[in-house]
Amino acid sequence: MGKANEHSFEVLKSCPDTWARAAMLITIHGAVPTPTFVPVGTQATVKTLTPEELSALGTKIVLGNTYHLYLRPGIALIANLGGLHRFMGWHGPLITDSGGYQVFSLAQLRQVSDDGVLFRSHIDGSEHSLTPELAIQFQEALGADIVMALDECPPYSNDLDAVRESMERTHRWAQRCLKSQQRDQALYGIVQGGVFKELRRQSATFLTSLGFDGYAIGGLSLGEPKKVTNEIVEETVPLLPEDKPRYLMGVGSPEDLFEGVSRGIDLFDSALPTRIARNGSLFTRQGRCTIRNARFRDWDGPIEDGCDCYTCRNFSAAYLHHLFKCEELLAYRLATIHNLRFVLRLMEEMRQHILDGTFSAFKDSFLASYQPCDEDTRLSQKQKWLQSRDTKFSRGRAGFSNRGNIC
Amino acid sequence: MGKANEHSFEVLKSCPDTWARAAMLITIHGAVPTPTFVPVGTQATVKTLTPEELSALGTKIVLGNTYHLYLRPGIALIANLGGLHRFMGWHGPLITDSGGYQVFSLAQLRQVSDDGVLFRSHIDGSEHSLTPELAIQFQEALGADIVMALDECPPYSNDLDAVRESMERTHRWAQRCLKSQQRDQALYGIVQGGVFKELRRQSATFLTSLGFDGYAIGGLSLGEPKKVTNEIVEETVPLLPEDKPRYLMGVGSPEDLFEGVSRGIDLFDSALPTRIARNGSLFTRQGRCTIRNARFRDWDGPIEDGCDCYTCRNFSAAYLHHLFKCEELLAYRLATIHNLRFVLRLMEEMRQHILDGTFSAFKDSFLASYQPCDEDTRLSQKQKWLQSRDTKFSRGRAGFSNRGNIC
Repeated sequence: MGKANEHSFEVLKSCPDTWARAAMLITIHGAVPTPTFVPVGTQATVKTLTPEELSALGTKIVLGNTYHLYLRPGIALIANLGGLHRFMGWHGPLITDSGGYQVFSLAQLRQVSDDGVLFRSHIDGSEHSLTPELAIQFQEALGADIVMALDECPPYSNDLDAVRESMERTHRWAQRCLKSQQRDQALYGIVQGGVFKELRRQSATFLTSLGFDGYAIGGLSLGEPKKVTNEIVEETVPLLPEDKPRYLMGVGSPEDLFEGVSRGIDLFDSALPTRIARNGSLFTRQGRCTIRNARFRDWDGPIEDGCDCYTCRNFSAAYLHHLFKCEELLAYRLATIHNLRFVLRLMEEMRQHILDGTFSAFKDSFLASYQPCDEDTRLSQKQKWLQSRDTKFSRGRAGFSNRGNIC
Repeated sequence: MGKANEHSFEVLKSCPDTWARAAMLITIHGAVPTPTFVPVGTQATVKTLTPEELSALGTKIVLGNTYHLYLRPGIALIANLGGLHRFMGWHGPLITDSGGYQVFSLAQLRQVSDDGVLFRSHIDGSEHSLTPELAIQFQEALGADIVMALDECPPYSNDLDAVRESMERTHRWAQRCLKSQQRDQALYGIVQGGVFKELRRQSATFLTSLGFDGYAIGGLSLGEPKKVTNEIVEETVPLLPEDKPRYLMGVGSPEDLFEGVSRGIDLFDSALPTRIARNGSLFTRQGRCTIRNARFRDWDGPIEDGCDCYTCRNFSAAYLHHLFKCEELLAYRLATIHNLRFVLRLMEEMRQHILDGTFSAFKDSFLASYQPCDEDTRLSQKQKWLQSRDTKFSRGRAGFSNRGNIC
């Protein structure tokens, strides 16, 4: 069992038609009404935004990335400066991930063993290792309210035996994470098992038996069809305890948030809303729009009528179009504000509808007018993004020396 | 005489030891206590900042660049959307320049005649012309509180005859600007004459005889030694009317602001504080510091103790160092906030000391501890910047067609 003293979670209302639930998660840094979306502050900043702005957007909890912070500026440096909350000036609830996902998606030349994973930095090719014990040690030094067990995150695969092996390693690592925990942070386990329902059931059952403070579903949204994502979530959720938070990692598009909430998920994180914002792709209730499109050149109204974000309350779509055309830094910020507020407000509305018993109708009404990216476009965009990231970060060199961790 | 109805200017107190003065400039969009610094909002945005932030920094008046706005998004577009105030969401006092400075520094293949100037866009090489009448027409469409007469801005030169010819053209253009004015904006004339005192005296006397609402000193800070800049300002100011605002264009370093204020200048604008901020060069009372420097890596305190800016109140220098190292967009914004607040606060303090009769002592005390860039470094940096800009924007093609203005 995790050692969280101040971590509590109470389900307030369940939807009569779906598995959706409204709950309250309490941490020492504040309360988190759920379901909610967790903005991603990769390098100790949610890109372009100040903590003050995050609060104004309705952000209740932020995610920091242990892998990135370990490489830059270093865990010890942040710890010496009083921890991640103080370093980044965010004094509300904070999650850190274990570093596992980034090691498996960003770093080069990974060697995985039961002990842990040896990898090269995507920044300078330097060698490092990450073990379950180190993942906990790093996260304790960072001092977030919620920390994650180290998991192995293989890419989307149809190889049952390989995925099982990886899942079993994740289970052994989960036990070591629990055992090595010293501080009173909430520790969440991560269910793996790829797209195999049988493995997911095994993983959920095993992790639940260990008694974590919360449960994440990892290894999804990695390029599999959405139907499969939803089926896996449906298979997993009923095996997780009712009275603990459930966290679906890597999900952040409006339509996916509805699917997750209606399957009983409480927390979501994804860089999608902020990443596509910087590309000029903005959420509206009809779907995404491309602000660089010529139709916005002289559009006097806001990006979306009725949107309560700072951007829509103060600027025309024409102004935002102009800023993007000129590549002005303010463009990326105003777009980020809009997309984050869109998603956070959607979560607030979902929660209110759950409390009012009208979630199902709200979901139907939203999805009836919201036009998601079609599956092919979505998958090809995802693929393109993953490839561009791989190319950008590719600095791998052959072989590993015996140098240890640089903390 | 300019047609300003709502434009007034009252000198409240003069320094007993220098020519410094504290005054109040009134525009229809608000009051501007002077002396003050005018942040530069080149493309309808002070880079990285929202209008809300500008206000929080103590910004009283902002400058927009007619040349840039003419090219993108176009004057007519901004006018159709309600003018520049509304377009950029800045509802306080606003100046626009005439476009002259940018045409002479940024655009390619200029052909200057008495009629006006023919130039190519630095963005796409397209051809345009700018005349005194068009400069006024554009600025009336943008709708700023203060507009500038079109002037010819030749580079720093020792050729007396060439500078005189250019000055005389500026004078003829100034008359045409006054004559073509339709709206009740405050119109400022711009004194030219290069580094020649005799020409500067002629220019100040001639423009004063025309009766503008304010007077700018242009054509300085173009690479001449600071001693020369100061001498030219000293030669010019006594020939300008006491009861009109005086505006020194292109000056924005702390030491230069003191020199200008003590010579009777009320308004200053420069992209320097914001440009060097994005390069990681930050003002302190001891001089500029380079935030990327390793000594800031684990610096727990703010960039400057006692600074009241949002950045210093909330973040360590180590955090800013980290953001710069990671090239996070928030870095440029937090640095911009610090440098602008530094300069605006300095102006507030200067004004208070003028009102208190202690300006001279404040100046001495500031300059005793502030270590400016040495002259050689400053000039070589300036040269490098001008060259990099020329290279970046160089898209000139030979010849001009007969195409007219694209508004």
